[in-house]
Amino acid sequence: MRTRPLKVALLGCGVVGSEVARIMTTHADDLAARIGAPVELAGVAVRRPSRVREGIPAELITTDATALVKRGDIDVVVEVIGGIEPARTLITTAFEYGASVVSANKALLAQDGAALHAVAEDHDADLYYEAAVAGAIPLIRPLRESLAGDKVNRVLGIVNGTTNFILDAMDSTGAGYQEALDEATALGYAEADPTADVEGFDAAAKTAILAGIAFHTRVRLDDVYREGMTEVTAADFASAKQMGCTIKLLAICERAADGASVTARVHPAMIPLSHPLASVRGAYNAVFVESDAAGQLMFYGPGAGGSPTASAVLGDLVAVCRNRLNGATGPGESAYAALPVSGMGDVVTRYHISLDVADKPGVLAQVATVFAEHGVSIDTVRQQGKDGEASLVVVTHRASDASLSGTVEALRSLDTVRGVASIMRVEGE
Amino acid sequence: MRTRPLKVALLGCGVVGSEVARIMTTHADDLAARIGAPVELAGVAVRRPSRVREGIPAELITTDATALVKRGDIDVVVEVIGGIEPARTLITTAFEYGASVVSANKALLAQDGAALHAVAEDHDADLYYEAAVAGAIPLIRPLRESLAGDKVNRVLGIVNGTTNFILDAMDSTGAGYQEALDEATALGYAEADPTADVEGFDAAAKTAILAGIAFHTRVRLDDVYREGMTEVTAADFASAKQMGCTIKLLAICERAADGASVTARVHPAMIPLSHPLASVRGAYNAVFVESDAAGQLMFYGPGAGGSPTASAVLGDLVAVCRNRLNGATGPGESAYAALPVSGMGDVVTRYHISLDVADKPGVLAQVATVFAEHGVSIDTVRQQGKDGEASLVVVTHRASDASLSGTVEALRSLDTVRGVASIMRVEGE
Repeated sequence: MRTRPLKVALLGCGVVGSEVARIMTTHADDLAARIGAPVELAGVAVRRPSRVREGIPAELITTDATALVKRGDIDVVVEVIGGIEPARTLITTAFEYGASVVSANKALLAQDGAALHAVAEDHDADLYYEAAVAGAIPLIRPLRESLAGDKVNRVLGIVNGTTNFILDAMDSTGAGYQEALDEATALGYAEADPTADVEGFDAAAKTAILAGIAFHTRVRLDDVYREGMTEVTAADFASAKQMGCTIKLLAICERAADGASVTARVHPAMIPLSHPLASVRGAYNAVFVESDAAGQLMFYGPGAGGSPTASAVLGDLVAVCRNRLNGATGPGESAYAALPVSGMGDVVTRYHISLDVADKPGVLAQVATVFAEHGVSIDTVRQQGKDGEASLVVVTHRASDASLSGTVEALRSLDTVRGVASIMRVEGE
Repeated sequence: MRTRPLKVALLGCGVVGSEVARIMTTHADDLAARIGAPVELAGVAVRRPSRVREGIPAELITTDATALVKRGDIDVVVEVIGGIEPARTLITTAFEYGASVVSANKALLAQDGAALHAVAEDHDADLYYEAAVAGAIPLIRPLRESLAGDKVNRVLGIVNGTTNFILDAMDSTGAGYQEALDEATALGYAEADPTADVEGFDAAAKTAILAGIAFHTRVRLDDVYREGMTEVTAADFASAKQMGCTIKLLAICERAADGASVTARVHPAMIPLSHPLASVRGAYNAVFVESDAAGQLMFYGPGAGGSPTASAVLGDLVAVCRNRLNGATGPGESAYAALPVSGMGDVVTRYHISLDVADKPGVLAQVATVFAEHGVSIDTVRQQGKDGEASLVVVTHRASDASLSGTVEALRSLDTVRGVASIMRVEGE
């Protein structure tokens, strides 16, 4: 074994960073044996140096992250700051100064992954980011290495623990969105400002990363259709139950049937209770991958948290250090397929639509005609009348989102349709 | 991209090999883009050259596997023959002649993995074998790379599709073992001679491989305790149901509580219906991994079959080819921890024991005394009497297998115990 240690600079020492530092210290011998050389924590860049950081020698702490990555003797920079800047500049500088990078930064990778990969390649360095998607669950590595000889057609997953916790609570207790959110906040599963989670921004960033790797195509955050889950109601869960379904916020990356384009989207959807994703509880994550040869695979585990995320970071750290000792680099960006990313209108799926309609003869015929005119085939209709008002629940066969939108627009203009109570996609069948 | 192709020799062209050849041909452009150089099928060694092999040029077919691996221009040998010989000699020769090896051979790796890794290392070559365990499910790579910075404490899984199909059928239809086996045979899920599957040999080989990688310790097939599932009865399933459990043939690798040793075993066990492994149906496989930092992860997918296994082989082929272009090798054997592998007596778990006893006063007291004398604490007892005979079902708290064996031996010598109807371990709690 080489005795000269590989030097690691840690940028950020919050929930994840402190766990990375702790494990690097307590498991130093194991890491050395697995890498083939010791790894040394050479510096830790933080914003608040006064905070006590157990187990990290005070002389390693610095507020000057730029100076740390510019030291010139750093082998690997571990970036767990998050956000776009200063992370982007620091990572770029790290490559320029000869280091490889391990990052957990989903927002940055979804926005600027291609540019960062290019800088890494220019400097013969590695950019690894298993921790950016679904915490501890090995997903990036299986997609870009284990399935490298296969053709992935679909990725369907729960990649945000906060929203899964809220939806699971709504499902099991009958609570409304706000009540379930309050519980999640009280228990520490939701942040004080939950926007990034509940509006699907976090899941959309992960979806862009997954789609890019799965389809060997650049998919940016802007390419991902995004719909949050703040408008999911207890009534939607009741409707889902009647269909033998539950509701999950899903990340879906799909290759079109003709293989010539791909789509990426995040939105709440009904899935059958028999689908393995339906039983993913609490803050857990799970991702289904469908490919030509392997068939259906599922990966399940904790999608967030200090320790699980640190596990993913350290797995990457070991790989990057081994590559460095080998004088090699691991797989970089693979975007050779360069498939066009279609918009939501081209997505084909099923829909569950609740309409408030006048309770009089001929309404169903009118509604059915609108669906037919837009080429959307109806699977089932259920009508419930009460005091001159009625609700009509329509479940469609597979249709394009564009056709469905046209249908809904036309329905709204019917005198007999008082309102469209909810529209939800049905997935996983 | 390099234009000179990497040359691949395929040993074996059965269900898996023919799929590997097919995908190498139909997806040649994708593989080239992902590897950075084209890959060329340079030869295919078979036993029966007369069989028509669609899509494989006749001039590539040979019956002389030894000559093929000795050609000297082969970059990667893909071994999908199975069994110990001639596979072992061919793989060793491949290394000696400068090739890296991708293998799906669980029996060989469980028996001679350490020796083969040593030869690979001597020749700076790779030995990859994702396909040897759980078919298409990425498991070897996540364990040896994604979790390389973590400490794995437990691997608990269903790694044999045939037995899971049989047990699932017994559970859902109430059929007995033989009837379910006959169905599995008729549907092609069980081989004409099902011994390797139903007696747990296949699962034991996979368990040895998983334990070795998980614990960075050499674990050979002989170190794995093995009990088949041919004696599981419909009555056992009825007992399991009463406990809110089902029965699975489980592969279990565990680090002892003190961390100083490990155990590896395969046997049927009851697991709670709430456990994710309980809902793994048909011939699917799934493996739970518990580690210090990541927590609980699960990997799920098809555990066998030509296409899924080919997917795993090709993922390895891409990785090995990339390493070759890089002039590097991937992670080799990691056995530095060298923990002792304890026997079954040291395993600590819970037990479900059915006794046929005389239906008279004092029997329960006698039985309970025997458990107490052997230090096995009882969780629940259920007694059902009928015509002077009674059955007594005892579920214990956690105890060592040695203590439990002592208890059962003592119970058999009691006059009032007519017989021990079944003993089954209870896992996954």
